[in-house]
Amino acid sequence: MIVVLKPGIRRDEIQRVVERIESFGLRAHLSEGEERTIIGAIGDERLLADQTLESFPGVEKVLPILKPYKLVSREFQPSNTVIQVNGRRIGDKKIHVMAGPCSVESQEQVLGAAIPVKEAGATFLRGGAYKPRTSPYSFQGLGPEGLDHLAHAREVTGLPIITEVLDPRDLDVVCKYTDVLQIGARNMQNFKLLTDVGKLDKPVMLKRGLSATIQEFLLSAEYIATEGNRRIILCERGIRTYETETRNTLDLSAVPVLKQLTHLPVFVDPSHGTGRWDLVAPMALAAVAAGADGLLIEVHPKPEVALSDGPQSLKPPKFAALMEQLKKLAVALGREV
Amino acid sequence: MIVVLKPGIRRDEIQRVVERIESFGLRAHLSEGEERTIIGAIGDERLLADQTLESFPGVEKVLPILKPYKLVSREFQPSNTVIQVNGRRIGDKKIHVMAGPCSVESQEQVLGAAIPVKEAGATFLRGGAYKPRTSPYSFQGLGPEGLDHLAHAREVTGLPIITEVLDPRDLDVVCKYTDVLQIGARNMQNFKLLTDVGKLDKPVMLKRGLSATIQEFLLSAEYIATEGNRRIILCERGIRTYETETRNTLDLSAVPVLKQLTHLPVFVDPSHGTGRWDLVAPMALAAVAAGADGLLIEVHPKPEVALSDGPQSLKPPKFAALMEQLKKLAVALGREV
Amino acid sequence: MIVVLKPGIRRDEIQRVVERIESFGLRAHLSEGEERTIIGAIGDERLLADQTLESFPGVEKVLPILKPYKLVSREFQPSNTVIQVNGRRIGDKKIHVMAGPCSVESQEQVLGAAIPVKEAGATFLRGGAYKPRTSPYSFQGLGPEGLDHLAHAREVTGLPIITEVLDPRDLDVVCKYTDVLQIGARNMQNFKLLTDVGKLDKPVMLKRGLSATIQEFLLSAEYIATEGNRRIILCERGIRTYETETRNTLDLSAVPVLKQLTHLPVFVDPSHGTGRWDLVAPMALAAVAAGADGLLIEVHPKPEVALSDGPQSLKPPKFAALMEQLKKLAVALGREV
Amino acid sequence: MIVVLKPGIRRDEIQRVVERIESFGLRAHLSEGEERTIIGAIGDERLLADQTLESFPGVEKVLPILKPYKLVSREFQPSNTVIQVNGRRIGDKKIHVMAGPCSVESQEQVLGAAIPVKEAGATFLRGGAYKPRTSPYSFQGLGPEGLDHLAHAREVTGLPIITEVLDPRDLDVVCKYTDVLQIGARNMQNFKLLTDVGKLDKPVMLKRGLSATIQEFLLSAEYIATEGNRRIILCERGIRTYETETRNTLDLSAVPVLKQLTHLPVFVDPSHGTGRWDLVAPMALAAVAAGADGLLIEVHPKPEVALSDGPQSLKPPKFAALMEQLKKLAVALGREV
Repeated sequence: MIVVLKPGIRRDEIQRVVERIESFGLRAHLSEGEERTIIGAIGDERLLADQTLESFPGVEKVLPILKPYKLVSREFQPSNTVIQVNGRRIGDKKIHVMAGPCSVESQEQVLGAAIPVKEAGATFLRGGAYKPRTSPYSFQGLGPEGLDHLAHAREVTGLPIITEVLDPRDLDVVCKYTDVLQIGARNMQNFKLLTDVGKLDKPVMLKRGLSATIQEFLLSAEYIATEGNRRIILCERGIRTYETETRNTLDLSAVPVLKQLTHLPVFVDPSHGTGRWDLVAPMALAAVAAGADGLLIEVHPKPEVALSDGPQSLKPPKFAALMEQLKKLAVALGREV
Repeated sequence: MIVVLKPGIRRDEIQRVVERIESFGLRAHLSEGEERTIIGAIGDERLLADQTLESFPGVEKVLPILKPYKLVSREFQPSNTVIQVNGRRIGDKKIHVMAGPCSVESQEQVLGAAIPVKEAGATFLRGGAYKPRTSPYSFQGLGPEGLDHLAHAREVTGLPIITEVLDPRDLDVVCKYTDVLQIGARNMQNFKLLTDVGKLDKPVMLKRGLSATIQEFLLSAEYIATEGNRRIILCERGIRTYETETRNTLDLSAVPVLKQLTHLPVFVDPSHGTGRWDLVAPMALAAVAAGADGLLIEVHPKPEVALSDGPQSLKPPKFAALMEQLKKLAVALGREV
Repeated sequence: MIVVLKPGIRRDEIQRVVERIESFGLRAHLSEGEERTIIGAIGDERLLADQTLESFPGVEKVLPILKPYKLVSREFQPSNTVIQVNGRRIGDKKIHVMAGPCSVESQEQVLGAAIPVKEAGATFLRGGAYKPRTSPYSFQGLGPEGLDHLAHAREVTGLPIITEVLDPRDLDVVCKYTDVLQIGARNMQNFKLLTDVGKLDKPVMLKRGLSATIQEFLLSAEYIATEGNRRIILCERGIRTYETETRNTLDLSAVPVLKQLTHLPVFVDPSHGTGRWDLVAPMALAAVAAGADGLLIEVHPKPEVALSDGPQSLKPPKFAALMEQLKKLAVALGREV
Repeated sequence: MIVVLKPGIRRDEIQRVVERIESFGLRAHLSEGEERTIIGAIGDERLLADQTLESFPGVEKVLPILKPYKLVSREFQPSNTVIQVNGRRIGDKKIHVMAGPCSVESQEQVLGAAIPVKEAGATFLRGGAYKPRTSPYSFQGLGPEGLDHLAHAREVTGLPIITEVLDPRDLDVVCKYTDVLQIGARNMQNFKLLTDVGKLDKPVMLKRGLSATIQEFLLSAEYIATEGNRRIILCERGIRTYETETRNTLDLSAVPVLKQLTHLPVFVDPSHGTGRWDLVAPMALAAVAAGADGLLIEVHPKPEVALSDGPQSLKPPKFAALMEQLKKLAVALGREV
């Protein structure tokens, strides 16, 4: 950590900063430049991460040198994490496509999505039983009944399921049903939920918050990892910007950035990322070209009557056509779908 | 709601949209322009709010006419909501200042802030016992012990307290201690927590999410209100933008916008809104000039050794000086502090 | 255009809005809903585009129905515009790669980039003689001497050149040398320059502004088109967001959105879009997968000593490797590089 | 400047970075930490500002220590710049209000704004003769005829005028008429225009770009200052964010930040900053409370028929009422209007 001092700082003020750094077991190295004096704090600067050093009189700014996360970093573990779920290997050569409806609405509807996505080559079934909705007047999900429908679809298709959990109090029931837990964008900084999920022996997909930086995203993954659960999948799903043609701005450059910074698998959700079904196919292809390890795609047998996210859901035939394109693309990139 | 149709839409496609609108009990009014045909959906369009109409073939876009929230809207209740807490009236002529440390660290520290802020004219004591922290390696709050310290400071100073709750499972214990519940920015869309808080008989301050639109902010308040709890205080605390000189960009225009749209009291938190103690005073003054009903300000006896948010905390003498300026300003504006 | 009226608007106020609409030759169609009365303005609403209707007493908001641009829209011209430059067809099946240094620094440097990019398969040489630099202390470009170096490199390699123009007063000299004019992101709303360029018989690449919406981007293209010049190439080059891992956030979903809205060719600049050479290859691949008609890539023989944008420039061998990947990818997508 | 090296960097790679730093006349100071080695570049780091050091193999990142601008910085000149225009002192105790129509439309209209704003206490008349408009179909300004109308209004009222210049080729004619030149937000990085204006002996108001950082804003001012013209007024006018209730997000915290960083006067434009006349008064008051040296406010005798920006223009009586409030507020803050 580098502490930049203001011009004209007094000796005793410098001394107090030095003492503060040393009180955490780091060494303080003073260096006088022509316009500024700086202090290098040498040692484990994560101990100083809360940056109250900026509150000291005479301190202009504090510049961190190290990344604030550790367990999830590529430096800590250079090789890719591969997560095994029911014989499927996530984070390896094969690109996994998790598809299904936004909300579980009925057994018929789930099967109406699950069967064709299985046939088209999806390897997981997605579907929400507990739904975080912006408005209290919107459909809030079927709850446990929805989980039942998902389990039934798993029996019929053999597809493992991924579903979202919103409330720590629902973790037990959701874990009984699901193969992969999903933490949604709005809960990326629900630290209690992250901590609880970290204590489980269940793979977790963590979605990037609507306005989370990549560093905050990795720190949220670190919350899970520090509790013991290292089977974490990251998912880019669009960030909030000023552009209104799309629901969110899908930040595909986050994919190669994350692949450099962390050993965890990185997925992309082009359905939420764009909010428009007609953009899902090009952005799914782009995500794979950018290096994504998998995709999360909303498929609904009848998007016009969906209880949520109809405008961004593909119909099964469109999804099947996309899967064909993805297969060709993957081969050209030395991967497979 | 206005449904704009694509040029070349077929008659049967129009018919299906019309039927869908009518199936919700609204009337569909067709209007042919020179370049586009549109359908006006007449009736309670909130029933169509999920906008799956955009999924119908031939639909170009859907434009809402009405606001999606109701109970919290100024149309629903034209007069200001005034919330009474221990004899204090929030949302009335008097501007309330809630001050205290970001995190409760010790009894001594809380008193070291509470006593001088009381003397300077603050009318509530703020302090966090449960802390949402970006990094798992940061101080996470003292929990119940912190609540004890706050209660002790209330006894000493007579100031009612406001403190944050993160987890629905902590609601019971927090409610036993606090006078006002705080829902932080990261939990603005923790809909389970909002729903639970909506069932309580306790005033709630709801902080705007880091990248929440004003409409989403009001919909989150609506979550609380629909459950029965109408004693809601809104708090603008800065939004995320590209600017890095400040921790967030304090959106003060949200104050007059909210005062138009809702009858609820509107507060501003210039400490989180800027992240820098040296900007707290000018932005506190600006917030009051913009029409805020109150302020939330971080005060710490020794910001240099604070366990969180030191750089944005005022020392008691600076806070006292600010209160003097606020008093003069309030008079010029026909209000009081 | 739909004009939404406030509840309680008086009859005479409505009448004034109606008269205003009719004064522009449009018809006003009144429709009373349960909570709001609206007026539909039927006719060429672009005549009302300045939206002063929002200033009338009793008007709540104005919702446009039509797009504000015309000549560049896909509705106006359904088939793709193909731009011919020295026998190359831009906007057709072949994906064009324009590569070269950010700034022209010397004849040796330009050739050191031009020769290898030609060999690797680039079809245009890029390079800046006039440079828009954030700081007045940065290298501002060689000016006319730089144009000479580009012309020399064109003679040697046969590659047509593209170079930026900043000032209308430089248009004559730049046009003498260049095959394609470039208008940079900072000049996307330099309307005088757009108008002047619109009068020329020279293809133009228009880059998206740092925080331009897609609609504003197309309106800037419309400025050029209304003057007569329809040979316009659009280029997405990253937008400004809160994320700091990358210099900008490359908005690849803009590619399929633009391909729907306009008939003009759409390019992507992954060098400026990310600001990091190590992200150029994945984002170039992703851009092509998203449907881009071409790429603009910075290549420098010695990025470490570049006078601008070194950190985002590829060395020739990396560029050649990327071209090999692009060729395979293009085939999988039914296109060619 | 601090250069952070990657773990595992080779000795010869370090040596090349050191040599590069020394080649610019700075000293390189190596410091080995536990996880990272860093190099401190000691001397005038502005010589290294283009940061091509990031292109060197083994370099992880480069952290600047100093501000990249100089002449406009508070460090360079600790005392406030006061700009005298026709006996008025801008940047001193008195807060100046520049008011008038967005666009000059006719002599009658200009006078219809100029006379009442003068009476209400405005000290400058604003009005645009050359207008930067997003759409080519919008009113583009009267040009020289508009300048004539402004000059006539100056004769009638005695108010000095401020008007925008878009094109360097118009500088001569605009300078003949205006007392203060305005460079609009879209031209904040039109570096040729900045350079030309920097050579003139005429005060300039520079408006912040739609998505300009404060640092970029100051670097644009530095462009003007390096050419010799130091009579620069800065104007915050709202930045682009995701929020749609307002046209822009007025960043009032920029006011105290700028007052710290620079000695130049800082104005605020609440009309463009919000885009809504009903928010102009609260945000004007807030701007002054935040420490602004002046305001730029749009006033139009008949906003409903304005050719531009009607929705954000005040009618003269509302403006007069605002001026009364401002006068009281200024007194409470120890200033005057």
